Amino acid sequence: MTLLETTVAEIRPADPAVIASARAHQDRLTKPRGALGVLEDVAVRLAGAAGHNPAPIPAPAALAIFAGDHGVHAQGVSPWPQEVTTQMVGNFLAGGAVANAFAAQVGASVTVVDVGVAADLLEGPGLFIHKVAYGTADLSRGSAMTAAQAVAALEVGITTARRLVDGGARCLITGDMGIANTTPSAALICAFTGATPESATGRGTGIDDETHRRKIEVVRNALAANGLSDGLAGVDASGDAGAMPGMEWLNGEAAAGLRVLAAVGGLEHAAIAGFILGGAAARVPVILDGVIAGSAALAAAALAPAAVDHCVAGHRSAEPGHRIALDRLGLRPLVDLELRLGEGTGGLLAHPLVCSAVRVMHEVATFDAAGVTEKEA
Amino acid sequence: MTLLETTVAEIRPADPAVIASARAHQDRLTKPRGALGVLEDVAVRLAGAAGHNPAPIPAPAALAIFAGDHGVHAQGVSPWPQEVTTQMVGNFLAGGAVANAFAAQVGASVTVVDVGVAADLLEGPGLFIHKVAYGTADLSRGSAMTAAQAVAALEVGITTARRLVDGGARCLITGDMGIANTTPSAALICAFTGATPESATGRGTGIDDETHRRKIEVVRNALAANGLSDGLAGVDASGDAGAMPGMEWLNGEAAAGLRVLAAVGGLEHAAIAGFILGGAAARVPVILDGVIAGSAALAAAALAPAAVDHCVAGHRSAEPGHRIALDRLGLRPLVDLELRLGEGTGGLLAHPLVCSAVRVMHEVATFDAAGVTEKEA
Repeated sequence: MTLLETTVAEIRPADPAVIASARAHQDRLTKPRGALGVLEDVAVRLAGAAGHNPAPIPAPAALAIFAGDHGVHAQGVSPWPQEVTTQMVGNFLAGGAVANAFAAQVGASVTVVDVGVAADLLEGPGLFIHKVAYGTADLSRGSAMTAAQAVAALEVGITTARRLVDGGARCLITGDMGIANTTPSAALICAFTGATPESATGRGTGIDDETHRRKIEVVRNALAANGLSDGLAGVDASGDAGAMPGMEWLNGEAAAGLRVLAAVGGLEHAAIAGFILGGAAARVPVILDGVIAGSAALAAAALAPAAVDHCVAGHRSAEPGHRIALDRLGLRPLVDLELRLGEGTGGLLAHPLVCSAVRVMHEVATFDAAGVTEKEA
Repeated sequence: MTLLETTVAEIRPADPAVIASARAHQDRLTKPRGALGVLEDVAVRLAGAAGHNPAPIPAPAALAIFAGDHGVHAQGVSPWPQEVTTQMVGNFLAGGAVANAFAAQVGASVTVVDVGVAADLLEGPGLFIHKVAYGTADLSRGSAMTAAQAVAALEVGITTARRLVDGGARCLITGDMGIANTTPSAALICAFTGATPESATGRGTGIDDETHRRKIEVVRNALAANGLSDGLAGVDASGDAGAMPGMEWLNGEAAAGLRVLAAVGGLEHAAIAGFILGGAAARVPVILDGVIAGSAALAAAALAPAAVDHCVAGHRSAEPGHRIALDRLGLRPLVDLELRLGEGTGGLLAHPLVCSAVRVMHEVATFDAAGVTEKEA
């Protein structure tokens, strides 16, 4: 069995009995019922995902920033030169990026993984080299990756999740770095949800109207070039990924998901999808960052629907496609502050909120224990 | 000079030159301009408030929970018995409340201040007794407090802020405990903003439709009984607070604000208003919790408009009046998770977000320093 197959087989859905007992526990705590709003759901969901109430405190956290480049950059979808991907890897390693500052605030470790940067990087402290390719092919002209590359990148993500959990992480946070990577994100969201390129394509880190129009056209072309103009309906899963040696175990939906991921995803999207699967298999919660992670989570969900039970949406990105992805995943974001940076910044901001939600279940007294009178019925 | 007068005189508005230099600094950091959304404004505002860029990291934080009771409880506006105020003070001191769990998560100290509980409490570790009265009078039948009581409670808040800052706190977080205290909050918001009782009165910690209708009527009666049915327009400030011995320094707006606070506020509302003034005078940021703090901040702003420059809105409460108060204050909340608990819980959740925003200004590299290429113009 491949690492991907083993991992998918290990993923368990949330336990409904634990969810019920967590909810009952929550309602006995010294606070009005429902007074913690969305955080009550987070604590209950994570108990179900852990298979135990209360869920373990999700700390310490580990951020993994998966870095990759994109052939579609040649289409002029970003005002940033491609070498910024490599330069920002250097900035992460030097501790000078926003992700570093936010990670320091919440006590999270930062690991950078080169899964597809279009330059040779040197392995060193905080940087793992698992380069699958020097960037993807241009998705607007054909498949961005081969199915084998997508699987390799998925397994980079799984390996990274395992390594961090083995090192003591009790919460995983997704991060990304890849100039132009909101374009494959938009294409993935269109393909997985049936959304139109107009509705799913945003301005990324800041583009003008003309570039935005071009980016929408590029997404449309990418879907057409890969037989995805009608979303998943157009996918002949049997013809590609499902026929890969060693991949016969994939069911139709999973094979179609892998096909879409390879066709219009990025190497960091595939690695993040694998990272989610790896966290879910280890029953460690995964906080999703923004639109890159949201689109990758759609691929993870296609491969293993129960993986979503282990995910928390860290924040809502300013990218319009992110809302579409989260709606499809059934996740409500915790932080909504118009961030559009990536790197894992939105996920890091959410980490103390997730910890706070779980702490309540460990530390707050019940009405009985505290001698506090309940409200009149 | 009284403590209140001294404190108000010490409050400085944000420095526009520092705001401009903070904004320019923010724009040189290795991230797309504006990519941190609302957090960029937080960092810039706090630099202006501190009079220095970057603002000091706002940690450690200190939560003060001001506890008081309310004569209006007799009108049946809450399903919780009044003694729950006292019981919850015990729960805070035992570390069993949600505020304790959230404070532990963010490393904040917790101090409870009895400014008006309707029972005798014993001073002890974590509890200061500064009882101004055994609860307020019923605001639906006349003034909840005398002007002298309101001033005394304001000064309890100032004293608490000073004590915490002297003890090393670099961020103050407002907290409250007082069964029925969303009713005076709604009345304060109506009086200060001209909002109608229907629009400003919510369901607090959970009431049914009939109780909600009664609560709206109680708020309407409170405004009528205190000559506030037309908001501030009906206030003859010269006749009351302004004529108090030692209070001749109050200008018209401040005197009217004090009159409103005394008429329809609670002792904990007045103490929180003083806490805000005390933090602002010390140039230490104050994170406002929910609707209780929002209504108290309207009173603080009437006494010293520049105090708002030192405030951050921690979260948006589920209470409808809170949105009205924040709009008037010009503050955008950081956390929006449908909390309706009080105690300072929403302010505590926001603390790491505020720290993260400020940390960026201390720790993130500039494009030049990091050797990262800027985007094409």
